[in-house]
Amino acid sequence: MLTRVKSAVAGFMGGIMAGGSSGGGGNPGNDMPLKFPYMRPEFLGLSPDEIECSADHIARPILILKETRRLPWATGYAEVINAGKSALNEDQACCEVVVVRRRPMSYCPPSTPSKTPTAKRRNSLPNGEGLGLRMEHSKLGEDYEGLVYHYWALFDGHAGSGAAVVASRLLQHHIACQLQAVIEILRNLASPPPTVLGEEPDADLYLQGTTPGPHRALTRAASLRGAAGAPGSPCSTPPPPRFFTEKKIQHESLVIGAIENAFKEMDAQIEREKQFYNITGGCTALTVVYLLGKLYVGNAGDSRAIIIRSNEIIAMSAEFTPESERKRLQFLGYMQPHLLGNEFTHLEFPRRVQRKEVGKRMLYRDFTMNGWAYKTIEDEDLKFPLIYGEGKKARVLATIGVTRGLGDHDLKVHDSNIYIKPFLSCVPEVKVYNLTQYEHGADDVLVMGTDGLWDVLSNQEVAEAVTTFLANCDPDDLHRYTMAAQDLVMRARGVLRDRGWRITNERLGSGDDISVFIIPLMYGNRQP
Amino acid sequence: MLTRVKSAVAGFMGGIMAGGSSGGGGNPGNDMPLKFPYMRPEFLGLSPDEIECSADHIARPILILKETRRLPWATGYAEVINAGKSALNEDQACCEVVVVRRRPMSYCPPSTPSKTPTAKRRNSLPNGEGLGLRMEHSKLGEDYEGLVYHYWALFDGHAGSGAAVVASRLLQHHIACQLQAVIEILRNLASPPPTVLGEEPDADLYLQGTTPGPHRALTRAASLRGAAGAPGSPCSTPPPPRFFTEKKIQHESLVIGAIENAFKEMDAQIEREKQFYNITGGCTALTVVYLLGKLYVGNAGDSRAIIIRSNEIIAMSAEFTPESERKRLQFLGYMQPHLLGNEFTHLEFPRRVQRKEVGKRMLYRDFTMNGWAYKTIEDEDLKFPLIYGEGKKARVLATIGVTRGLGDHDLKVHDSNIYIKPFLSCVPEVKVYNLTQYEHGADDVLVMGTDGLWDVLSNQEVAEAVTTFLANCDPDDLHRYTMAAQDLVMRARGVLRDRGWRITNERLGSGDDISVFIIPLMYGNRQP
Repeated sequence: MLTRVKSAVAGFMGGIMAGGSSGGGGNPGNDMPLKFPYMRPEFLGLSPDEIECSADHIARPILILKETRRLPWATGYAEVINAGKSALNEDQACCEVVVVRRRPMSYCPPSTPSKTPTAKRRNSLPNGEGLGLRMEHSKLGEDYEGLVYHYWALFDGHAGSGAAVVASRLLQHHIACQLQAVIEILRNLASPPPTVLGEEPDADLYLQGTTPGPHRALTRAASLRGAAGAPGSPCSTPPPPRFFTEKKIQHESLVIGAIENAFKEMDAQIEREKQFYNITGGCTALTVVYLLGKLYVGNAGDSRAIIIRSNEIIAMSAEFTPESERKRLQFLGYMQPHLLGNEFTHLEFPRRVQRKEVGKRMLYRDFTMNGWAYKTIEDEDLKFPLIYGEGKKARVLATIGVTRGLGDHDLKVHDSNIYIKPFLSCVPEVKVYNLTQYEHGADDVLVMGTDGLWDVLSNQEVAEAVTTFLANCDPDDLHRYTMAAQDLVMRARGVLRDRGWRITNERLGSGDDISVFIIPLMYGNRQP
Repeated sequence: MLTRVKSAVAGFMGGIMAGGSSGGGGNPGNDMPLKFPYMRPEFLGLSPDEIECSADHIARPILILKETRRLPWATGYAEVINAGKSALNEDQACCEVVVVRRRPMSYCPPSTPSKTPTAKRRNSLPNGEGLGLRMEHSKLGEDYEGLVYHYWALFDGHAGSGAAVVASRLLQHHIACQLQAVIEILRNLASPPPTVLGEEPDADLYLQGTTPGPHRALTRAASLRGAAGAPGSPCSTPPPPRFFTEKKIQHESLVIGAIENAFKEMDAQIEREKQFYNITGGCTALTVVYLLGKLYVGNAGDSRAIIIRSNEIIAMSAEFTPESERKRLQFLGYMQPHLLGNEFTHLEFPRRVQRKEVGKRMLYRDFTMNGWAYKTIEDEDLKFPLIYGEGKKARVLATIGVTRGLGDHDLKVHDSNIYIKPFLSCVPEVKVYNLTQYEHGADDVLVMGTDGLWDVLSNQEVAEAVTTFLANCDPDDLHRYTMAAQDLVMRARGVLRDRGWRITNERLGSGDDISVFIIPLMYGNRQP
């Protein structure tokens, strides 16, 4: 698929830059219009000429924010295109401050979340001035009953840039839409979220044993591993009537649920709109939402976010790859073998099995195992393993090396009718960092990067580079985070020497697209 | 079910103690013989009278090893029965040194692993004397080409003691049997485990693109998130022919796989033998295997093992409960809704939904979510949630509070035909601790306890109690670990006051069965 995309894209680069509506990562065999044209992040403010120059695979210029432009919190950003693996930069980025307004019927119909007029977007503003950001949520007036959240996101596309471009334009609106449904509850931090909207708790409900159906089973529940810690009355008397527990849900959980469902809605929208638009490929998504004092880092894919605080590194995401999600994928293949199309086996072997090895004993593992054992090879085992390869070369269904993200609805195993999508998940893992629990200095930052960065630099190397760089900058220079991002991209890309990109110690630089945000954390405390 | 077991068991306690073959946790409505009679751990060396006294729910005597008896490594052990929730102590324990002998056809037929004569068991030996334990694996002679492993295990039964008794007698043999299949490989630490047994690597195999079938898909794999880190040649030339990767498996992984598969075989044996024997209920299983310098802690259930080393606590297991395994269980219910029998929904709600709430919006989450969101209640949501309740009261299918273990093949939702077993897993999580990487002192120990201990004492409280206790003992007193275990059980049980068992700060003591091993780690280094 890439080969086809590659050759076609090479031919229409000029067309894109001239604003052609059929280019921009669209599938050239597809006559439908693009949902959005190919672009670089809006906040970079590039001219068409500059966008064209940015795609130079030999110079690989590092793009940064212009001095005159600033992102909220003085966020730094830098990016570079790959060394030739695709004509266009398949990474996309977004940074905005989003205002979520209250609506009486606070519910976005899933079919048109991107069109809701109430999720108002303002971006590329000089450090938040004029945005009403000084208004804390508790000070919002009657005529301004909304929520403001800050949003940063990276998308790393594959097999075309369509899904990444669409997600970079729309995911923030899906998040706004999900938050809108709980805006009243989030604004009222004094009360826990109600279990049911619009009703008082019903005392009768909590008495046990009055309802038929599975309730009856509860009367014996204590017998099966539940009696521990009960008052140790020597005689066994019937337990007193108990009350039903009602789980108390935290406000934070509503924000996590909103982000999770927003990713799902975004993915569903891509699927729907592929009927009318040419949206190619898929993409990973790494988002940071700052809301009411907390950072929510949502990750679906193999990008990464870390917090560097004093000399500590705090991982804010984990990568989703064929190896890290092996058990989930194998379990699905085991439960629904038709998804494997008679070509793949859910078992893992250290390498492909050969026909002459049938009857011999070979190492394997299934979805229940972390360890390995030997099994006698049968004909069934000659199928290709669902998960195959190690590290960056690990693949699902011999096709894809990342197991979460958006898009990919059409992706199939080459020359077959086996769809990859059932094995991919669009759901992010969301980690929370409470900004108010720590006094952050000017050098405490959150670093977001696509895998182009992390493939060649470790967390420790990134932290050392950023810390060293920032220590040598004027703390009052708001451009310092962009300069640090540029430095990181440079360290990961390296320089072209001996027909290859090299970084320190003669290691290979990253030939991939690289995108980096560096977000200073002190502005979260300061409510700038 | 427990009620039935309870009343019946109360009547036949005398019969058990007299050696009656129909008692001992057998289902009294079942005329089949017991696989093994009810007992307390063999190493305690209790007389029938002592076993009967141990079941006194009012005195709750704490049983410990007699001074004259010693377990390998001077391991300490103590236990106490519950406060009345079941007539018999449903915990079981085992500690043995197992010799695994080499066999030419090193494979145990799954149907008779417990009968293999080559897995020789010796137990309750005075600190390993006479066991050949001084022979390290590398010194084993030609006529003694075996492996020796140390084994400690706790089983916490529910709904009868049958499964726990059977597992405490047989699981070590299943482990021996699995290890036997890889004994030659484990003894040869100089070479990595071969992928296929009995053949040389075939160089031809590793050339790409020569085999039809899904191999062909690999040629495009790099396009989908695999090009990162590739040499950054500016022009995109076809990649050079690559070699197939072959995963290198560590020896350690073979031991983990052996333990995982041994648990599966144990569970399968219980299922098979239920056709001929009366084996009631189910049980959790926590095992520690010491082999070739490493401790392998396998856990299926809610018992716990921690290492206390200097002032550090190292968690060596994680509990498997409806809450910790929610996503796995909900995913299964979602994929195979017939397992829910039209009575349960895979969705989680904070409490039971009422009919009058249909049409309103209520908090929920599905298998993809960690957060919560609101959904409009439909008729389908009136079903009982698959996962319900919090903490120790959380239940799967309103029935059971632990989600991994052995047995339970007959367990159903009360008054229904819905089986619980498909939602339970018998597979342990195995964690490894390399004893040779640290010089352990006399007070560095591994503590294993059933949930009766951990329900009332935190890791920190246990560590402080053990550390303080051992510091006040003569370091050369080999009975000190048993005394420390007794102290822990006493702290968790408490004393009977005001008609209840109380521990420090007037907290409730544990009314559950409590069993504790304290294993000093210095003997692992010393090869005593």
